[in-house]
Amino acid sequence: MASTPRTETSTPDENGAAGPFGTVRLTPLTAADPIPGGFPTVGVIGGGQLARMMQPPAIEMGVRLRVLAEAETGSAALAIHEAPVGDHRDLATVSEFAAGVDVITFEHEHVPGPILEKLVADGVPVRPGPAALGFAQDKLAMRAKLTELGLPCPRWAQVRTYDELSAFAGSLPGGLVLKTPRGGYDGKGVLLIDELSGSKALTAREWLEKAGPDGLLAEEKVAFTRELAALIARSPSGQAAAWPVVESTQKDGICHEVIAPAPGLSADQAALATSVGLRVAGELGVVGVLAVEMFETADGRILVNELAMRPHNSGHWTIDGAVTSQFEQHLRAVLDLPLGDVRARSPWTVMVNVLGGEYENLYRSYLHVMARDPGVKVHMYAKDVRPGRKVGHVTVCGDDLDDCLERARHAAAFIRGDIDE
Amino acid sequence: MASTPRTETSTPDENGAAGPFGTVRLTPLTAADPIPGGFPTVGVIGGGQLARMMQPPAIEMGVRLRVLAEAETGSAALAIHEAPVGDHRDLATVSEFAAGVDVITFEHEHVPGPILEKLVADGVPVRPGPAALGFAQDKLAMRAKLTELGLPCPRWAQVRTYDELSAFAGSLPGGLVLKTPRGGYDGKGVLLIDELSGSKALTAREWLEKAGPDGLLAEEKVAFTRELAALIARSPSGQAAAWPVVESTQKDGICHEVIAPAPGLSADQAALATSVGLRVAGELGVVGVLAVEMFETADGRILVNELAMRPHNSGHWTIDGAVTSQFEQHLRAVLDLPLGDVRARSPWTVMVNVLGGEYENLYRSYLHVMARDPGVKVHMYAKDVRPGRKVGHVTVCGDDLDDCLERARHAAAFIRGDIDE
Ligand SMILES: Nc1ncnc2c1ncn2[C@@H]1O[C@H](COP(=O)(O)OP(=O)(O)OP(=O)(O)O)[C@@H](O)[C@H]1O
Ligand SMILES: Nc1ncnc2c1ncn2[C@@H]1O[C@H](COP(=O)(O)OP(=O)(O)OP(=O)(O)O)[C@@H](O)[C@H]1O
Ligand SMILES: [Mg+2]
Ligand SMILES: [Mg+2]
Repeated sequence: MASTPRTETSTPDENGAAGPFGTVRLTPLTAADPIPGGFPTVGVIGGGQLARMMQPPAIEMGVRLRVLAEAETGSAALAIHEAPVGDHRDLATVSEFAAGVDVITFEHEHVPGPILEKLVADGVPVRPGPAALGFAQDKLAMRAKLTELGLPCPRWAQVRTYDELSAFAGSLPGGLVLKTPRGGYDGKGVLLIDELSGSKALTAREWLEKAGPDGLLAEEKVAFTRELAALIARSPSGQAAAWPVVESTQKDGICHEVIAPAPGLSADQAALATSVGLRVAGELGVVGVLAVEMFETADGRILVNELAMRPHNSGHWTIDGAVTSQFEQHLRAVLDLPLGDVRARSPWTVMVNVLGGEYENLYRSYLHVMARDPGVKVHMYAKDVRPGRKVGHVTVCGDDLDDCLERARHAAAFIRGDIDE
Repeated sequence: MASTPRTETSTPDENGAAGPFGTVRLTPLTAADPIPGGFPTVGVIGGGQLARMMQPPAIEMGVRLRVLAEAETGSAALAIHEAPVGDHRDLATVSEFAAGVDVITFEHEHVPGPILEKLVADGVPVRPGPAALGFAQDKLAMRAKLTELGLPCPRWAQVRTYDELSAFAGSLPGGLVLKTPRGGYDGKGVLLIDELSGSKALTAREWLEKAGPDGLLAEEKVAFTRELAALIARSPSGQAAAWPVVESTQKDGICHEVIAPAPGLSADQAALATSVGLRVAGELGVVGVLAVEMFETADGRILVNELAMRPHNSGHWTIDGAVTSQFEQHLRAVLDLPLGDVRARSPWTVMVNVLGGEYENLYRSYLHVMARDPGVKVHMYAKDVRPGRKVGHVTVCGDDLDDCLERARHAAAFIRGDIDE
């Protein structure tokens, strides 16, 4: 294992990955160690909250998770027994990790393609596979593929020079959006440009200079009425399932709130969004959960924004709100088990993210939040509070949307420390 | 720590508690190690499936669990990071375990009273406390207390000699039941005696000889129409909540099936059963989940059978079927957090236990079970299959009771290996 070995310590780590009863020590990988009943081990690359949230359904199903974590104190490492620390960009590390599990999957799209190709060549089940993942890793590749498939996208161009950017901007009626093709998340790597002049023009020039040989993705700024997401699961044998289409609201590029199902979405529009999602999953050969972020426009069009091939923030509502959560479903899909029922359990489910705020003691808020509302479901990720960081989410299910919204928003705001009553 | 220390091994344990990435080693207890956000650590005595099933809600709430396990390979130890092995009947072991957690709770009632008293004297929050637990540990003490409170029980007597037993049997119109006051579970320690003669009389004599100074509990054999259970949660500050009353079916003294809510139970009977449960919880000062097993008789009486002060098999339906599961609620209660909503999420929920059968490979059954029924929720405990042992359960929620029953029974029977299609 090429990762940093953990060593025995008698002073517990401040962040608590190591308890007073011991520290997990890396010993050489020897053989797969079965758990009773023939249950498999799923290896997850990445140790954040998405891996963490796979653990409850894994425990329920009797499936074991092993995580390749970025740090000993990661969100997943506190919940998942076997969480060796290692670099997912290092072939030897990933290969050795893969040797101890039955299937490899991901909580992010950042493992380099060549490493994934090598695992596949070595016979490791990698789900989703590198071909599919490539379209979630690279927004330019994604746009080209969707356009080839005739799927609706914002107008877009690949731009390597300021002249190309300027020409594209001139062809648009409104503003544009500049995106780094790789590595963006939570709005990082997204530049909104209402007018290509002044400081925005300067920043655009800087981005272009720093860009790789493929340049950047430029898109029309879509005057969307709202953002939707289609959540799909697909198994290696081709079975697919689609949860109800949701509405998601971003603040400063970060997912803030999700309503399931999207209020007032006509049956036709819902079917359209779902069929776009299913088509993407099938054509790209996705395995596991796929989230397709979309824009709804005033004239009723639905345009694809981007793809995520893993459980996604727009699907957190399914933990409490659907018969099968996206995390259970992701495990079922990557294990090629039959997929679970994706129906909602209540007429409405509202999920609101808890972003880090002023207060570090999140636990203290439970007293008030739970007393005020016995029905709110609080999910915390065991992450250090930093302003703007996703540290948890809350979910409320019910018959009345306004009531669910009020309750979920209140709980999230209180935990964050924005309100004190 | 007086427990057997775990030692480093390079060959992973056959049952998989230690993975190829390392073995948890016990190091001396030093100090509490906080997790980000001010979240507490709950110490659970016992490492079986009940502790295991506390882990999904603990992860969701950000609460950390630490388990004092019977063995490295226990059901909980596979799911809970910190699971030192130690003897819960040893004061030093339990005290040292308690020093590393914020509150002590249990998945069984077998910790000796004097140890619990010592912990309390040392200032450890023990929930439920020794006074309450005593009534779940000793069926004679339970009967005496319930009788003192005027709560309805089967006719009963404390019997130390065969003559006392014989006199009690003679006072009954029908058969009787002999019980060991302590340590019984799953029908072990329960002897049904339709007539006190022949081999039953012999066995009764043997039991009396082996009994402690308190002798045995003798009860009338209740001609019940069915068994009910009231599931209650109570917090140290006295808040209490009662889930819908359920019907449970035992086979050979082992819980087999639970239907929530109990079909056809009148509102009056449900209120009566609930009020008995709430009264027991309050009068005995229970903290955490309390299950009150009851008999319903043909003439409409409700008699208390026995008490369990922990999450209970009759409450497994709440994981999928209620807004707040008994496992989440138990954690909330022992942490003195406000209790969660106990309402059912569907008109009907059916839970069927999976007992060990012929087949050791439980996982293989998933392909068929999940394909046949995408809505069934399968819960597995990562235990070695042994005939008659509880190795998992399945749950189905829905609008139609017969449909739920058929589906849940089919899934459980298939996983067990009783049917093959
Ligand atoms: N073409 C566009 N027109 C208008 N708004 C856009 C456009 N592209 C992106 N946005 C806005 O910026 C947000 C972030 O964009 P995008 O999803 O591409 O970035 P990201 O950093 O990859 O985010 P994520 O965290 O979802 O992966 C979108 O949710 C949307 O609100
Ligand atoms: N007095 C009684 N009359 C008729 N049946 C009884 C009586 N007492 C017990 N039984 C039957 O035996 C079963 C087991 O009894 P009990 O619950 O007291 O035993 P246990 O071993 O403590 O079981 P558990 O696993 O529930 O703790 C009951 O569920 C019931 O079916
Ligand atoms: Mg996005
Ligand atoms: Mg019982």
